[in-house]
Amino acid sequence: MNIGIVGYGNLGRGVEYAVRKNPDMELVAVFTRRNPADVKIQTENVPVLKIDDAKNWQNKIDVMILCGGSATDLPKQTPFFAQMFNVIDSFDTHAKIPEHFAAVDSAAKNSNHVAIISVGWDPGLFSLARVYGNAILPDGKDYTFWGKGVSQGHSDAVRRIAGVKNAKQYTIPIDSALEAVRSGKNPELTTRQKHLRECFVVLEEGADAQKIEHEIKTMPNYFIDYDTTVHFIGEEEFNKNHSGLAHGGFVIRSGNTGANNQNNHIMEFNLKLDSNPEFTTSVLIAYARAAFKFAQEKNFGCKTVLDIPPAYLAPVDAAELRAKLL
Amino acid sequence: MNIGIVGYGNLGRGVEYAVRKNPDMELVAVFTRRNPADVKIQTENVPVLKIDDAKNWQNKIDVMILCGGSATDLPKQTPFFAQMFNVIDSFDTHAKIPEHFAAVDSAAKNSNHVAIISVGWDPGLFSLARVYGNAILPDGKDYTFWGKGVSQGHSDAVRRIAGVKNAKQYTIPIDSALEAVRSGKNPELTTRQKHLRECFVVLEEGADAQKIEHEIKTMPNYFIDYDTTVHFIGEEEFNKNHSGLAHGGFVIRSGNTGANNQNNHIMEFNLKLDSNPEFTTSVLIAYARAAFKFAQEKNFGCKTVLDIPPAYLAPVDAAELRAKLL
Repeated sequence: MNIGIVGYGNLGRGVEYAVRKNPDMELVAVFTRRNPADVKIQTENVPVLKIDDAKNWQNKIDVMILCGGSATDLPKQTPFFAQMFNVIDSFDTHAKIPEHFAAVDSAAKNSNHVAIISVGWDPGLFSLARVYGNAILPDGKDYTFWGKGVSQGHSDAVRRIAGVKNAKQYTIPIDSALEAVRSGKNPELTTRQKHLRECFVVLEEGADAQKIEHEIKTMPNYFIDYDTTVHFIGEEEFNKNHSGLAHGGFVIRSGNTGANNQNNHIMEFNLKLDSNPEFTTSVLIAYARAAFKFAQEKNFGCKTVLDIPPAYLAPVDAAELRAKLL
Repeated sequence: MNIGIVGYGNLGRGVEYAVRKNPDMELVAVFTRRNPADVKIQTENVPVLKIDDAKNWQNKIDVMILCGGSATDLPKQTPFFAQMFNVIDSFDTHAKIPEHFAAVDSAAKNSNHVAIISVGWDPGLFSLARVYGNAILPDGKDYTFWGKGVSQGHSDAVRRIAGVKNAKQYTIPIDSALEAVRSGKNPELTTRQKHLRECFVVLEEGADAQKIEHEIKTMPNYFIDYDTTVHFIGEEEFNKNHSGLAHGGFVIRSGNTGANNQNNHIMEFNLKLDSNPEFTTSVLIAYARAAFKFAQEKNFGCKTVLDIPPAYLAPVDAAELRAKLL
């Protein structure tokens, strides 16, 4: 399987590492909006090219991995590239998935390609956990917790405050809430009871720390409904301790069965990730294999992780899976 | 969807409860090897019939749930009923799955039916966790822990010892081993380091407790490789405290990514079940829905959970799943 990458940031680099772990795949080209000469990749003898060159690679790439952002890149890139390639993206704006799906489905079906969108861990593996949980325990409740990890959106919101030079925001699940859910009590939890927010902030010279702390903690949508702690730190400490990309989370389904609903069952899926982009791209690459198999079966159009039989992710055939992993 | 049950023990009763949780399903008949008049079920106006009568129900049952045991019932029953019905079983003898698959596949394909075998949690949901984990983190290790819960096979082995009147054996995962795995250290764990075994034994009058304890702890295959504790208790205590059917377990994939393999990721799926048979049958019923959809698509033959797109388990359509659970 020949793999192409569109966009070479944290995700693009992650795809490059992930391909190396899969002997049935080879990276053959990277496409960038930047000047290709300025983009240094980790793999020897793989060309870095302009996005416009992609159209000349239609017979040389089996699956193109789209590594752009969900806000502005993917809504345009995924339907565009699905006209020429089988594609995978990690579109993660939950509310806009139906609209994105429709656009990509039309492009992929018209050109006989396969597109798998919203691949990663949420949406992605967490969606799988929710669907399995709801189907198996229909009389129950879902709980999704995120973290501990960096929220890009919340970090950006803090950075936009006047006087803030740099900032990182960690979302932290509250242990007592997790334990209450795991106990099978099916608690009703408020936003404040599920997650804490912790900010590490570097101030511009002369900025008013007290005022900024108040502005963060009372920010509508982002912080007002949470217990938030704010730490002001120096730039050196910030760069040393807060440049990591760890993340994770928990999906728990708690449901009841039996003559009198007396039996409770807990299904829990959780992730603890040293590198959010490297794990996300490991998921993308596994689904690239599924896209390739769907294309070979001429099962064209847009798909999500919910449409993919688990066996399609594996590099071995179904008989070997049945013998070894079932 | 009309559901039939073959075999009315703990699993059959579990299917009955599970059907009630799913408004798109109805239980229409129960088939038994016993005298039907002796079998009292929980649902009104549903007939209990002899297994021989099943052949007259081929147009009235969409999916038949086979609730027999893996040792002797299912190897015969599943290929037999797959000639007449779409079927689901929970065949759990891991080593014999390929052989069972081949027999059922042939019967189902010859008669245009769908069979999904080895459905439940292990094999079943735990197999899914292993397949997703291996595909996403190919450079890693799998760990499966079972319990705390009753092992039927080990309980039977203790009951076969002369002087033992009754016995229950609990398999207990060792916390320190679980924590070592979750730490990302990818430890090599011996059998003894992963699980404890705990036995509760009721003796026949005059039996030699010390001798029996020694016999249990040194029993080849079953106990010799484990740290085992044995408690001798009275019959009343046994019936009061050890008739439960709770179970559970953990599947953990620990893998590494990055330029120098420096980043570790932990994917964990775990279950905590008040009733092993009621949870297992909740899984069976969700896959019955998938079997029905496969049959409507004329996608006949034998399948396992690895072949089923997650969306096929849900009672709602793919568009609603994308909007609400993705």
